[in-house]
Amino acid sequence: MTQKILYTNDISAAIRSLAEEMKPASIHILTDANVASDVMPRLDLPSTDVITVPAGDENKNLTSLSMIWECLISGGATRKSLLINIGGGVVTDMGGFAAATFKRGIRFINVPTTLLSAVDAAVGGKTGINFGGLKNEVGAFAPADAVVISTALFSTLPPSEILSGYAEMIKHGLLSSAEVYHELLGFDILGADMTSLLPLLEKSVKVKERIVTEDPTEKGLRRALNLGHTAGHAFESLAMGRHKPVPHGYAVAWGILVEMILSNMAEGFPSAELHDYARYLKEHGYGSPAITCDDYDELTELMRHDKKNDSPGQINFTLLASPGSPLLDRTADKTEIAAALDIFRDLME
Amino acid sequence: MTQKILYTNDISAAIRSLAEEMKPASIHILTDANVASDVMPRLDLPSTDVITVPAGDENKNLTSLSMIWECLISGGATRKSLLINIGGGVVTDMGGFAAATFKRGIRFINVPTTLLSAVDAAVGGKTGINFGGLKNEVGAFAPADAVVISTALFSTLPPSEILSGYAEMIKHGLLSSAEVYHELLGFDILGADMTSLLPLLEKSVKVKERIVTEDPTEKGLRRALNLGHTAGHAFESLAMGRHKPVPHGYAVAWGILVEMILSNMAEGFPSAELHDYARYLKEHGYGSPAITCDDYDELTELMRHDKKNDSPGQINFTLLASPGSPLLDRTADKTEIAAALDIFRDLME
Repeated sequence: MTQKILYTNDISAAIRSLAEEMKPASIHILTDANVASDVMPRLDLPSTDVITVPAGDENKNLTSLSMIWECLISGGATRKSLLINIGGGVVTDMGGFAAATFKRGIRFINVPTTLLSAVDAAVGGKTGINFGGLKNEVGAFAPADAVVISTALFSTLPPSEILSGYAEMIKHGLLSSAEVYHELLGFDILGADMTSLLPLLEKSVKVKERIVTEDPTEKGLRRALNLGHTAGHAFESLAMGRHKPVPHGYAVAWGILVEMILSNMAEGFPSAELHDYARYLKEHGYGSPAITCDDYDELTELMRHDKKNDSPGQINFTLLASPGSPLLDRTADKTEIAAALDIFRDLME
Repeated sequence: MTQKILYTNDISAAIRSLAEEMKPASIHILTDANVASDVMPRLDLPSTDVITVPAGDENKNLTSLSMIWECLISGGATRKSLLINIGGGVVTDMGGFAAATFKRGIRFINVPTTLLSAVDAAVGGKTGINFGGLKNEVGAFAPADAVVISTALFSTLPPSEILSGYAEMIKHGLLSSAEVYHELLGFDILGADMTSLLPLLEKSVKVKERIVTEDPTEKGLRRALNLGHTAGHAFESLAMGRHKPVPHGYAVAWGILVEMILSNMAEGFPSAELHDYARYLKEHGYGSPAITCDDYDELTELMRHDKKNDSPGQINFTLLASPGSPLLDRTADKTEIAAALDIFRDLME
């Protein structure tokens, strides 16, 4: 897993220099309809062969993937061509998979246009599409040949998008060290100039990079990146099922708190840290999930069916002994989870 | 690229022992309609979850692939499940790709049921489907976790299938050494008991294995395996276009002779060897392509559009200095190819 990552305030220049270095037979750009209208006019790119897919996770499917392969064929792409994916996670996940499988693999570059995709989807080699009603059911581990990380496009993102991505940065901080984590909690993400975020973002991406390099196909350490996601996905699925979707990063932010509470109960994670974190969420507008104790059974069932569980019946969590000390493959039972959700609701009210 | 290869006369026992060793969460079998009726009843397998695709290269497509993914989901496959592909190249190519991409990759075993797939498709990690009217346009490099090679199923194959596979064995002999090559020309493939073929087949598969291990993604040495295929694919496509398809292995057998002639013209390949080889083809019933000098332009154009050509306009060949000494990335022009085709037609008449 080698992945070149450029941190820059000039996206167009970075793309041009990568393209010159890679000398592709042809360059093709993949983006979605929103990025095509809002972002593409602000860039100066070395190709006009632009493939545009409809925006939204519901379009990360076989129909769009098929269309991308068709456009690569009609655009004359060869085994030595280059695909540049410019967009959020939908574009980088699906474009990465399209490139990894077109003629058994052509080179590709990811250019994340959202904070969430910069810190999460664009780096680390997980590509894929939703299939059969299941998220990321079909895909490949295929690292981009290069990733261009920039905060230059983030100033026009709505606050919910920024907060969503920042939750994943906080997660990386928690996996890395108390120092990085506290630096993140101290940064005024909504008030800050986005250019001042770039050094923090670089630190955060490097945490993920380090973990992914050690364990590209998620046999062990990479599971640490699931911190906050067992409970988080349950919140997300519950909300989705009720047709009141919540941003992925909000659900993860809440999930991290639930898992901090479980960590406190089972692994001695410091109480003061979890209170600080809960206060941070409340002060920065992460809201809270609309749940009562009547929802606990459904949430627990959703956690049980998470694909991270290898053994049926068990619920797998990444927990924390303290900020910077993750604990892999921990489990909790229904009673413990209900107790944690009680405390969670108290803290968030 | 690590690929465990078992050579055996007892396919069922080999599959059972592999399955025991791999301890999958569930076992799923992929096969095609012909193999399901002709071969499956003769095997004793550790799973009854059988996915059957329609037979034939025209079904190596996105519709079948999609169906396989759906069956894996409905069959309850997890990331720790195992797919066993039992069939010819269509089944191992498509099943390998389905496994390589289901949940970003589950384990799979190939059990080739034809000589051609044993010596060619099942080993080496090339997986994929046809797409957009193009052969193997979408796929991945993904080695099977294990391959079970046996001649036990070959005794019921028609002679054309045996000859077709044997042409690829001869190709491996030519890439390996004069000794292996001459041993192959001396073996009475149509008269022999198929169990006596197993040691020769093992030698042949090991030639491919060695080449693929050195160059899994075809950056260099692996191109040697294209010997016979530049001219061979042209013969195959010409016949296909005229709705008189010829077996792949026959086209390759003819292609090898054309490329031996080019090797003789440009690289001093011994005349005696190419006469021996031409005699072998005639005596063993490989037939000859129905071409005249009026077809040379079309054949040359087909060679020019072969995906092995990196530079437009050039026609790339693997040639031979002598049996056992391949020469990569050689080119020939239209006049040279026409001269070779003249000699080819003389030799085959």
